[in-house]
Amino acid sequence: MPPVELRVYIQNQPERGEAYQITPENWRAALGPLASSTRISFHDARNVDLDALSRADVCVGSGFDTRVISQHAVNLRLLHVTSAGVEKYLPLDWLPAGAVFTNSRGIHSEKAEQYALMALLMLATRVPAFVTAQREHAWRPILTRVLRHQQVTIVGLGNIGRAVAKAAAGLQLKVRAVTRSGQAEAAVSEVLPVSRIKEAMHDSRHLVLCCPLTPETRGLISSEVISALPRGAGLINLARGAVLDSHALARALVSGHLSGAILDVFEEEPLPHGNPLWDAPNLLVTPHVSCDEPEGYIDKALGALVPNLSSLLDGVLPTVNVVSRTLQY
Amino acid sequence: MPPVELRVYIQNQPERGEAYQITPENWRAALGPLASSTRISFHDARNVDLDALSRADVCVGSGFDTRVISQHAVNLRLLHVTSAGVEKYLPLDWLPAGAVFTNSRGIHSEKAEQYALMALLMLATRVPAFVTAQREHAWRPILTRVLRHQQVTIVGLGNIGRAVAKAAAGLQLKVRAVTRSGQAEAAVSEVLPVSRIKEAMHDSRHLVLCCPLTPETRGLISSEVISALPRGAGLINLARGAVLDSHALARALVSGHLSGAILDVFEEEPLPHGNPLWDAPNLLVTPHVSCDEPEGYIDKALGALVPNLSSLLDGVLPTVNVVSRTLQY
Repeated sequence: MPPVELRVYIQNQPERGEAYQITPENWRAALGPLASSTRISFHDARNVDLDALSRADVCVGSGFDTRVISQHAVNLRLLHVTSAGVEKYLPLDWLPAGAVFTNSRGIHSEKAEQYALMALLMLATRVPAFVTAQREHAWRPILTRVLRHQQVTIVGLGNIGRAVAKAAAGLQLKVRAVTRSGQAEAAVSEVLPVSRIKEAMHDSRHLVLCCPLTPETRGLISSEVISALPRGAGLINLARGAVLDSHALARALVSGHLSGAILDVFEEEPLPHGNPLWDAPNLLVTPHVSCDEPEGYIDKALGALVPNLSSLLDGVLPTVNVVSRTLQY
Repeated sequence: MPPVELRVYIQNQPERGEAYQITPENWRAALGPLASSTRISFHDARNVDLDALSRADVCVGSGFDTRVISQHAVNLRLLHVTSAGVEKYLPLDWLPAGAVFTNSRGIHSEKAEQYALMALLMLATRVPAFVTAQREHAWRPILTRVLRHQQVTIVGLGNIGRAVAKAAAGLQLKVRAVTRSGQAEAAVSEVLPVSRIKEAMHDSRHLVLCCPLTPETRGLISSEVISALPRGAGLINLARGAVLDSHALARALVSGHLSGAILDVFEEEPLPHGNPLWDAPNLLVTPHVSCDEPEGYIDKALGALVPNLSSLLDGVLPTVNVVSRTLQY
């Protein structure tokens, strides 16, 4: 018999800032009438309540410790994280057999589209080179053409990749995607499978990374892939830091093989003070701000819970935004 | 009787870089059949040929010395400069009575539109703050909303101002212009005369300068005008450095009254190595690259000569892109 009430363990990470905190108010706002079928308790990720966890049907939030979940969340049916990236939780071998894991993909599109539009224009205008010159108080003008008709290649064509494709199409760029399957997609004129990634590089003036981090994509943008880009190409990383060999990137910037890079994500975040990327020439660092908005973020991140909690109350497993145990995204 | 042939004194400034040099090839390409009615000679601005100047009907190029023109160009009917800004030539009291002065306004629109689109997105995303943080190796994330529906005010609504208005309208921003006359214009929803500039500031999240530098606009963006902007506003200067009180700007950035600025133009260019603007917080310097393209620039800059030289050959004075002696633009 399905439960008439769901016990929900809500976990926040206060150090992540206000935009990412779940409150009773936005729980009620996001869940609507369904909120009355939930019994919620709030917890800090640094201070896990094992007793509450053991009774929870549902866990929602961020910063979960998979070993703790595996050992103590014995009634778990659904774990929902308020991020789109789930690399910290992979592989899903810790997830109890009767439970599903869902993420918040699909809520970042509009912001990601504007960030990509901005970053493509910045690379075309050589802004990263001007940022480097400014550090040296050096006036080094570079005139650039209006950005139009150039080839851009997008690695990963999920929600964020499609948003980037939309931005690029708005600039009348030629848009190619590299995806796992290589299957044709309406959003872009050309799709290649990841096995042909080097081939996809040869005429790419701009390379935009927006794939999930999985065992398949870790280190995908290697020295060889970067070398396959044409001289003077630019790179944008909206995916995860570990998708990219950052040493190879820095070498390509120093040699001038790449004309610029804009990175929003890093293997270690915050990027450590002593990391050489801070000073790499023609490289602009933005601190993981490309896809999130300050208001309404959590409301959107809780959106997938409405259909999924309805499913649980009907006695069936959630189906929206489920992270695949095999694909790992 | 109108002349059957025009003697044209072409002056280049080799130090300005290839994109700005007039060659016999682009003269012929730009003038078409009309080229056969011109007798051209090429000169370096650092080495004026007074004899050739005294015989010239037309001077074309950049870097003219107005005293030399006034004294020696005794046959001058037309002086055409390959820039849009003419502040170096003001006032036009040196211009012989029977001659007209024309500039290359109108050729920068497409590039200026993309630069403005980029710069507006950069201010909204707080990129200048990230550039400052990067200098300190500091990770200081600021989440920002999608840029939409905010108020932008454009000072000056010539060709570049209209291009900026187009970029802003594409982002669904509310666009106001401040102009000399304050007359309504189709390109924007609201126009105020320059006498009401402070009033125009009160709700402007973004202020974009693209007016000509004239005695009226020198120092127009004063400490008072900057103070009239709402806290957290951003500023973009595509006009001329002297339109803006750069000390007042720097103070507003240090105090946090302004959240960011992107400057492409400076009172002295190249911006001197010791100028404090290089290190001002939340300020991005681009080296006068906002409106020019590397290829085809000169071809476009010579465009206005076709109708104007036709006029001279018909015995009448040129009318296209004429700089007014009274308005000084």
